[in-house]
Amino acid sequence: MKQIDGGVCAAKGFKASGVFCGIRKNKTKKDLALIYSEVPATAAAVYTTNLVKGAPIDVTKRHIVDGIAQAVICNSGNANTCNADGIEIAEMECELLSKELGVKAEDVIVASTGVIGQPLCIDPIASGIPELVSSLSYEGSDLAAEAIMTTDLSKKQIAVEFEIGGKVCHIGGIAKGSGMIHPNLATMLVFITSDVKISKDLLQKAISSDVKESFNMMSVDGDTSTNDTVAVMCNGLAGNKEISSEGPEFDTFMKALNTVTVYLCRCVAGDGEGASKMLECKVNGAKTAEDAKIVAKSVICSSLVKAAMFGSDANWGRVLCAIGYSGADVDVMKVDVAFESKAGKVAVCKDGSGIAFSEEIAKKVLTEKEIDILVELNDGDGEAVAWGCDLTYDYVKINGDYRS
Amino acid sequence: MKQIDGGVCAAKGFKASGVFCGIRKNKTKKDLALIYSEVPATAAAVYTTNLVKGAPIDVTKRHIVDGIAQAVICNSGNANTCNADGIEIAEMECELLSKELGVKAEDVIVASTGVIGQPLCIDPIASGIPELVSSLSYEGSDLAAEAIMTTDLSKKQIAVEFEIGGKVCHIGGIAKGSGMIHPNLATMLVFITSDVKISKDLLQKAISSDVKESFNMMSVDGDTSTNDTVAVMCNGLAGNKEISSEGPEFDTFMKALNTVTVYLCRCVAGDGEGASKMLECKVNGAKTAEDAKIVAKSVICSSLVKAAMFGSDANWGRVLCAIGYSGADVDVMKVDVAFESKAGKVAVCKDGSGIAFSEEIAKKVLTEKEIDILVELNDGDGEAVAWGCDLTYDYVKINGDYRS
Repeated sequence: MKQIDGGVCAAKGFKASGVFCGIRKNKTKKDLALIYSEVPATAAAVYTTNLVKGAPIDVTKRHIVDGIAQAVICNSGNANTCNADGIEIAEMECELLSKELGVKAEDVIVASTGVIGQPLCIDPIASGIPELVSSLSYEGSDLAAEAIMTTDLSKKQIAVEFEIGGKVCHIGGIAKGSGMIHPNLATMLVFITSDVKISKDLLQKAISSDVKESFNMMSVDGDTSTNDTVAVMCNGLAGNKEISSEGPEFDTFMKALNTVTVYLCRCVAGDGEGASKMLECKVNGAKTAEDAKIVAKSVICSSLVKAAMFGSDANWGRVLCAIGYSGADVDVMKVDVAFESKAGKVAVCKDGSGIAFSEEIAKKVLTEKEIDILVELNDGDGEAVAWGCDLTYDYVKINGDYRS
Repeated sequence: MKQIDGGVCAAKGFKASGVFCGIRKNKTKKDLALIYSEVPATAAAVYTTNLVKGAPIDVTKRHIVDGIAQAVICNSGNANTCNADGIEIAEMECELLSKELGVKAEDVIVASTGVIGQPLCIDPIASGIPELVSSLSYEGSDLAAEAIMTTDLSKKQIAVEFEIGGKVCHIGGIAKGSGMIHPNLATMLVFITSDVKISKDLLQKAISSDVKESFNMMSVDGDTSTNDTVAVMCNGLAGNKEISSEGPEFDTFMKALNTVTVYLCRCVAGDGEGASKMLECKVNGAKTAEDAKIVAKSVICSSLVKAAMFGSDANWGRVLCAIGYSGADVDVMKVDVAFESKAGKVAVCKDGSGIAFSEEIAKKVLTEKEIDILVELNDGDGEAVAWGCDLTYDYVKINGDYRS
């Protein structure tokens, strides 16, 4: 498997585009994205677990109940959530795109991201759709990745190439997500495209299973957004024999999918609102895999751990504290903790108690941009990884007045 | 019932003191506190639910298993947690105090607060105890309240006077707590004294029941500390007939206790690390009281709500979002939200959708120091209140380098 360029356009038969249509006031930032498959694609998705759901999620769910989609339209700048006319607006977007693009309205996946509870006016979208469609290209992933960004500082995209049954296949994705990102949901907006041929049921199984190890193991701020969606379209143009049962070919697909999703997870965590550092918590030796997950998430979500990492402070007591209140079945007298980065590794806690370490080396390790928090529970074989970021002044600044 | 001065010394027969003994480097801040009852008192306590527990908790639990205590010793500057010799040190503290004060070591409640995982040296405590004991006085509540502070900016104490069976009774308390404060634990350090005569079992019932509506409904940062303890001592010197069963007299005691605990809750929330505003979330109309609690806590704990309040931004979508992911059984299409402060009240959401409101008035309401977030679920009779604070630059600053 090799990483390649092209994002959501790396797979055969996919085009994308992104334009500024006027939902945002700031004209320098695109706000409407389109992904298009030249042929109808098998589609599956997972959504936020928040009871308060964006109107587009309601529409998308109905549209892909048959497992088929051909396009994704997504705006930034407004979440189209908690608005009385939200569903009507989301349906109108699909209708307008359907006419301009020549696909069925019910084969359109629609998504929105931005502020909640402000009516989304259809006018800028209606006037933007012609340019959005006419500018579709095989090189458009960049533009689409940009157009779905909100407070993100960097575009997030990746693609990989691999073989199934002698056929060259591709899978690629784009993501947005910076705040309101938390485990236990289909986090943020992620659109994945592939030219693999796979059955509807297996595709849904693949994405539902994958998010448990990827997007659900990531947290920026503990808030579960109302609009998060991970959608995947597979158009079958790679020409492989359809994957319709589990086995080596399904495993290869899962592995490629996981490469894409974990890469996007790390991008999203590292670009968390205001983040200056990407944190990865690796837990080993848990009684069960579930306990490992609970511990990893708890550490990654702790405001105190996050603030300590911002300050490059090896305050491991906070890591232990977060393990202790996680709710996982842990013997705290067996816990070892270490910090690691490309500057080195420093063990700070053994058997639940502090050990002597060089503050100088610790500072060096923690001053890096990517920090691993290593937790060894010495109590079994369960392991898990979670991703997050530090808590900084800028997170507070960004979120203190988001609507302005 | 009337509020009076005196804190933990308001009840008959209680003295207190606070000194600087040298656990901290900064000599301007006291670090050792003592509360003493002239006669052995009935005692009860609730503790953190964190699996990682401070050594003093282990010792205190054993000491009050018989329901009797006569003194509380508490240091700040070091949590005596995750240290190999922690229990030994905590026991030594009790022994040393026992000798100097002339009480049984097993009648001493011991507590520590501060950084985790740094060995606590007994020397400064040993050398401080003589002065601590000799300076005990009926006016010492102030000094004790100061000596238990860590990153707190203000001392937290209160006392009330009331009657039971024709006898004048008192209950008073001091608290510390600024960071690492979160529902589902016996939060922070709270020491309560009373001259009421009450049986051991009823006292435990009273405090266990009270914290569910007070300290467990408060959150500063979502982190559950390792050392939190709420301890109460009742020495019976008011001369009332012992309260040994539920009824009007127990209810009067519960009401007085709740006045003290809710007051201290509001103090702790308003003095949350870096906080510039105290938030109170009042939830009404929930299907059950439990649902109301879940919703109130979720709103108070949301980083995004907290940051919006810091920015005086009426971003009610975040309130709705936090209700949606809370896990409570809520019909999101029925939810109304309003913000209120002494500057006025502004309704921002009706039936789950935004309504027109004056941004100018909203800004005025949210610029106050105490903000109520009013949530009406229109779905039953359950109600609850939770307390918290905004998320500010200073929280990050304080926690980015706590150990230095």
